[in-house]
Amino acid sequence: MSTMLKYVKKDLKIVGTRPLRPDGVDKVTGRARFGADYNLPGQLIGKVLRSPHPHARIKSIDVSAALALAGVKAVVTRDDFAEMPDEMAEVGELMINFRDVTRNMMAREKVLYDGHPLAAVAATTESVAREALSLIEVEYELLPHVIDVVEAMQPGAPLPNENQYTVGVKPKPERPSNVAKRLEFGHGDLAAGFAQADVIIEREFNTKPVHQGYIEPQACLASYSADGQVELWTATQGHYVFRAQCAKVLQMDVARIRVIPTEIGGGFGGKNNIYNEALAIALSRKTNRPVKMVMTREEVFRGTGPTPGANVKVKIGCTKGGKITAAEAELNFQAGAFPGSPVNQASMCAFTRYDITNVRVVGNDVVVNRPKVAAYRAPGAPIAVFGVESVIDEMAKKLGMDPIEFRLKNAAKEGTQTYYGPKLGPIGYIETLQAAKAHPHYSAPLGPNQGRGVATGFWFNIGKETTCALNLQEDGTLSLMLGIIDVAGGSRASMAMMVAEELGVEFERVRPSVGDTSTMGFNFLTAGSRGTFAGGIACVIAARQMIERLRERVAKIREVPLEAVAWKDGRAQPADAGSAQFAPMTLAEIAQLAGKTGGAVAGHAEINVQGPGPGFGAHIVDVEVDRETGATRILRYTVVQDVGKAIHPAYVEGQMQGGAVQGIGWALNEEYVYGDDGILQNPGFLDYRVPVASDLPNIDTVIVEVPNPNHPYGVRGCGEVPIISPMAAIANAIENAIGLRMFNQPFSPPRVLKAIDDAAAASNAQTQR
Amino acid sequence: MSTMLKYVKKDLKIVGTRPLRPDGVDKVTGRARFGADYNLPGQLIGKVLRSPHPHARIKSIDVSAALALAGVKAVVTRDDFAEMPDEMAEVGELMINFRDVTRNMMAREKVLYDGHPLAAVAATTESVAREALSLIEVEYELLPHVIDVVEAMQPGAPLPNENQYTVGVKPKPERPSNVAKRLEFGHGDLAAGFAQADVIIEREFNTKPVHQGYIEPQACLASYSADGQVELWTATQGHYVFRAQCAKVLQMDVARIRVIPTEIGGGFGGKNNIYNEALAIALSRKTNRPVKMVMTREEVFRGTGPTPGANVKVKIGCTKGGKITAAEAELNFQAGAFPGSPVNQASMCAFTRYDITNVRVVGNDVVVNRPKVAAYRAPGAPIAVFGVESVIDEMAKKLGMDPIEFRLKNAAKEGTQTYYGPKLGPIGYIETLQAAKAHPHYSAPLGPNQGRGVATGFWFNIGKETTCALNLQEDGTLSLMLGIIDVAGGSRASMAMMVAEELGVEFERVRPSVGDTSTMGFNFLTAGSRGTFAGGIACVIAARQMIERLRERVAKIREVPLEAVAWKDGRAQPADAGSAQFAPMTLAEIAQLAGKTGGAVAGHAEINVQGPGPGFGAHIVDVEVDRETGATRILRYTVVQDVGKAIHPAYVEGQMQGGAVQGIGWALNEEYVYGDDGILQNPGFLDYRVPVASDLPNIDTVIVEVPNPNHPYGVRGCGEVPIISPMAAIANAIENAIGLRMFNQPFSPPRVLKAIDDAAAASNAQTQR
Repeated sequence: MSTMLKYVKKDLKIVGTRPLRPDGVDKVTGRARFGADYNLPGQLIGKVLRSPHPHARIKSIDVSAALALAGVKAVVTRDDFAEMPDEMAEVGELMINFRDVTRNMMAREKVLYDGHPLAAVAATTESVAREALSLIEVEYELLPHVIDVVEAMQPGAPLPNENQYTVGVKPKPERPSNVAKRLEFGHGDLAAGFAQADVIIEREFNTKPVHQGYIEPQACLASYSADGQVELWTATQGHYVFRAQCAKVLQMDVARIRVIPTEIGGGFGGKNNIYNEALAIALSRKTNRPVKMVMTREEVFRGTGPTPGANVKVKIGCTKGGKITAAEAELNFQAGAFPGSPVNQASMCAFTRYDITNVRVVGNDVVVNRPKVAAYRAPGAPIAVFGVESVIDEMAKKLGMDPIEFRLKNAAKEGTQTYYGPKLGPIGYIETLQAAKAHPHYSAPLGPNQGRGVATGFWFNIGKETTCALNLQEDGTLSLMLGIIDVAGGSRASMAMMVAEELGVEFERVRPSVGDTSTMGFNFLTAGSRGTFAGGIACVIAARQMIERLRERVAKIREVPLEAVAWKDGRAQPADAGSAQFAPMTLAEIAQLAGKTGGAVAGHAEINVQGPGPGFGAHIVDVEVDRETGATRILRYTVVQDVGKAIHPAYVEGQMQGGAVQGIGWALNEEYVYGDDGILQNPGFLDYRVPVASDLPNIDTVIVEVPNPNHPYGVRGCGEVPIISPMAAIANAIENAIGLRMFNQPFSPPRVLKAIDDAAAASNAQTQR
Repeated sequence: MSTMLKYVKKDLKIVGTRPLRPDGVDKVTGRARFGADYNLPGQLIGKVLRSPHPHARIKSIDVSAALALAGVKAVVTRDDFAEMPDEMAEVGELMINFRDVTRNMMAREKVLYDGHPLAAVAATTESVAREALSLIEVEYELLPHVIDVVEAMQPGAPLPNENQYTVGVKPKPERPSNVAKRLEFGHGDLAAGFAQADVIIEREFNTKPVHQGYIEPQACLASYSADGQVELWTATQGHYVFRAQCAKVLQMDVARIRVIPTEIGGGFGGKNNIYNEALAIALSRKTNRPVKMVMTREEVFRGTGPTPGANVKVKIGCTKGGKITAAEAELNFQAGAFPGSPVNQASMCAFTRYDITNVRVVGNDVVVNRPKVAAYRAPGAPIAVFGVESVIDEMAKKLGMDPIEFRLKNAAKEGTQTYYGPKLGPIGYIETLQAAKAHPHYSAPLGPNQGRGVATGFWFNIGKETTCALNLQEDGTLSLMLGIIDVAGGSRASMAMMVAEELGVEFERVRPSVGDTSTMGFNFLTAGSRGTFAGGIACVIAARQMIERLRERVAKIREVPLEAVAWKDGRAQPADAGSAQFAPMTLAEIAQLAGKTGGAVAGHAEINVQGPGPGFGAHIVDVEVDRETGATRILRYTVVQDVGKAIHPAYVEGQMQGGAVQGIGWALNEEYVYGDDGILQNPGFLDYRVPVASDLPNIDTVIVEVPNPNHPYGVRGCGEVPIISPMAAIANAIENAIGLRMFNQPFSPPRVLKAIDDAAAASNAQTQR
């Protein structure tokens, strides 16, 4: 019931410690079961036929030869899925266009990108399934394609969707466009702001799509019963959302689908949406046998969503004294083959670290012949911040100011009016900047070709629909059933810790697990850094409800008034010296009498959590650039971040380190490489280079704790903020090292070398002139 | 909180109809997964070494050769399990002696019966495991054994437990005895009662152990994590009880064990207790690999619990007018190797169909060298009732009264004082007898060698600890999570029907499933015919809680007072013409707004259910006896039973038919056959003959509905009553057919032929004399 539990400072015993996570041993010993580890008797293997063209009309699909192959049990194509209306439908608080979902899952009139699914087969073995794919005959009419976001915005560009008219412009456009949506945020008077400026810097930046690179490819197993009941095992960030999507696409009752979440080998936003799940169910429905579908890494790259590539323009005006007077940005984001890039969030994150009177941000969501983008950790924010924090750095340098001092001068704080709506509540940006400035890293000496960069990031964090159930077992131990997926981040541990803290019992006595969709009511995705924040609130509500019930039982057993019973130190005790006295009872003692006193003791929470606390981070990075190869090495890296309260500091540090590492990969190496033919050239980890341990120093972390008053322990959420700053920080560090600013991500050795060579050539030309 | 919902007569739409059960299609198509259908990667196979002797001291167990065999990963013996105190411990409301549990699971000082486990091995394959068993060397000191209950009660009989002294006799006995417990129930003045009698009949009866004969042998799969977390899949009638037993025996926290109940291929009481489960966990703990253990049918017969064999003495006195003045019984029950026969329940059931002023029942729980008995459908009652209803039949005949009329004259009714404590509440015994008497079967003509028998039965039924959770999904469909195992009886269907009735939605919109032990709080066993009774009350509480929450949401959405919102016909509607008016909302409409109005909508119940309604049945059977072979054929069979209210009449009829069929098997063929060596001679379905379809007529059923006022729909429970009467009814029918009364069960062809031959010989002798 949208309950909010106000922050109460406490003498904490468990929150803030570092116990072993309940899922840890299973993961290091191999006992943990991920998506591909599930099997059922009689199961078939499903495989997907994918488009080899970036854009083509499908004239026909002939599956007869595939169906005739021994061992092939079924084929599904576009004909097996109902048409869905072209409108946004609610799934929990998520808005989804199911016309696009069905078309992305299975091409209908056209294939829209290299890798777009056309058909799926179920066969007795994987090799038979693969052979069957080769027997499916598809007649295509090839169409011109568009890959680049800027080209896609030009009049006359090829149109993946000929019926798409830009939303958000007036009057309604007369001609279709690849710009699916134009949005604008801002406040103040931009022209007046720039007029007040002494210095104006305007720059343009470009980024490439990068993939979340989760270690576990998508994997699922579906079993459809002849009477229309489905069990679906899948690696997901939101089993309820997957269930809703499958129910919609397959036109089934929601309660007939039971989604059992497996352990998940990373998600980072990439496992927020279904890919093979509805295909597997459809194949199981046709065959009356379970169907298992596991993507290859190539399929993951070609068929799932990376974050968008983008074109970003930033203009900032500033007084000589270092006060920003105006800021403007244009964000052009590749959505992939269907609308839905995170340009909205990116627009809101672009400048929301600064208190600026005059702001305008324009965002364009642009359809191109690429895989539909998916969420990736603080979706869109790193792209916008790369541009903005680069310009901030340049501005500070131009004004001769320390870059942290410059940020402090303009820093947002409690009460700052955002340009997209709300005023900011209590936040810890200034505290974070001060901690970064005070850190020894910030004043350590640097050698030749070495440079230091700083950048900061902001992320909203979210709450949303959350359920949990806490059950007291007969020996006083507790089972905690969670509705929020633990995407390997340790949320099972942090939630169990909050329950243990509330009840005053040992952490080891609380066993958390994640329930399937039939266990509890709707939970939103594990997204928006909400797990420990929203899940924690649900757990605290359930624990406090349990304490109420425990007090009732003790009042009954000891025959004292309810008010006389207090819960302290894991026991029911007399409330005070003045109240009725009785022998205290432990949890185990009450539990043993639960049956006799009315039945099992439980606490439940079903809530839509409000009041997330925005998070801010500041990153310091030292790099060394090899002027001969263009290679950039990370020498030292420090992440400073306000997390509100670190329930389990080690896992918070892990989030900060992991976000930084993904950001480093994005900055230095990762990119989708397309040829002129519109075909992805590097769909594998040999050619798409993610950072490995030897590329990296240890990532230092500094946890800042400015409590979120809307959470009982002050939690803000911490998972997304740390990926926002690395790209900008590293660009700033490279500039600091070699005097050259990188405007195009990634700052890979060839790019940096070219920048060095170009600069040398320009310098030579100037010298010779 | 021990909630009782009073019976309310309703205009029912769903309760009383016959929809398809949610688990039906899966079971007929083979998709349903039973205990042996679960597998995990890397699993080992566990097998048990069993004693070939009925009674021997274990001098040594040498497992070294077994452990040296390639593929053998671990062996466990008595040394792997802690000693447990010799006392009764509570598991929920079940009292268990864990000293006996550990010793029955794994012999310690002695083997106590043919089939008693001595060691268990885990190996890579079943054949390796079997070979390993053959390599275990056990040195025995053979001891004399005792198999027969009457012999076991004699002084000087071999003592399976040399330290056992009879409980329940004063003064405390000086010498150990196989009689573990003597109990006595009664009221009135027995001598005075018999003094008032005109006719006294005293008879002695004997029965053999019979097995529940569930189609699925015990099967489990255990996986123990290195950090002490267990997942256990098993076919069980009580996953919470299994969890408690495993936790105790393995000295683990209860919440660390997650028991996932599989579909169960019958139980009938035989799957109330662990056998291999703790062994599988112990083997998994030793090997760090999952361990699967599936019993063979031979192991099921030798190693699990049948119902006891017994010696029963009955004495009844009666006036010429047909009024019973006194009744006495002695029940001597084989407990098997450890105490715990159902002599207690049998004693209470013996005469509780009749209103008798002077009663005494003495019961003895007698230890012998046989497998420890387990519950079997109305445990013990059929044995006591076989004796009592045989004597009742003989008495009616002697008095020249119609046997139903005789029972009506003495029938218990509301207010009758039982001889074991409570007065009976509203019951339907008289209505049941009247329906039997009125049934065409009762007056149909009979041919030569044909006879008709009648017998009646009483069973308590129980409530106990029960939980459930009802979750509204976003499209208005409902997930119903149950804590009570559906032992194939259809309780998932009946519980979903009650939820659908309460909420006013279609049955198909409610998807029931059974949760694992981490999902909800403690549930007692599916036993005592409690499933639909206790589970139904929990479901109704959860549904009504959900309706309250739905009304709150609608009041909020429509901005009307809560009192203005009524729930009628599956919709929120204005309470009446005088209250605030608003547009009605369906479940789906409210569900769609659940997130926006506060989060998921759920209803929960955690209760200890009170107020079960006793059940009574009357059986009519026609038999034909082949005087040449002694074979008895069942010609016609009618079961009349008061079930309170049949939620799903087809499944109630199924219970009535199934109970009758098991009773027919018990009456005519089933028995454990032991040689003088104490070895079971018929551990398989070739030599232990259960009835097959061709042995049986269709079993007619008449449902009587005298509502239980403590259940919102009047349910009493129906599963156990129908097994109580067949043995007696068939004995009475045989007597009616051939004039010979059978005192020893089973009434198998050799026994009946011998009775015929003996009678002929006696008659010849008399003629010749």
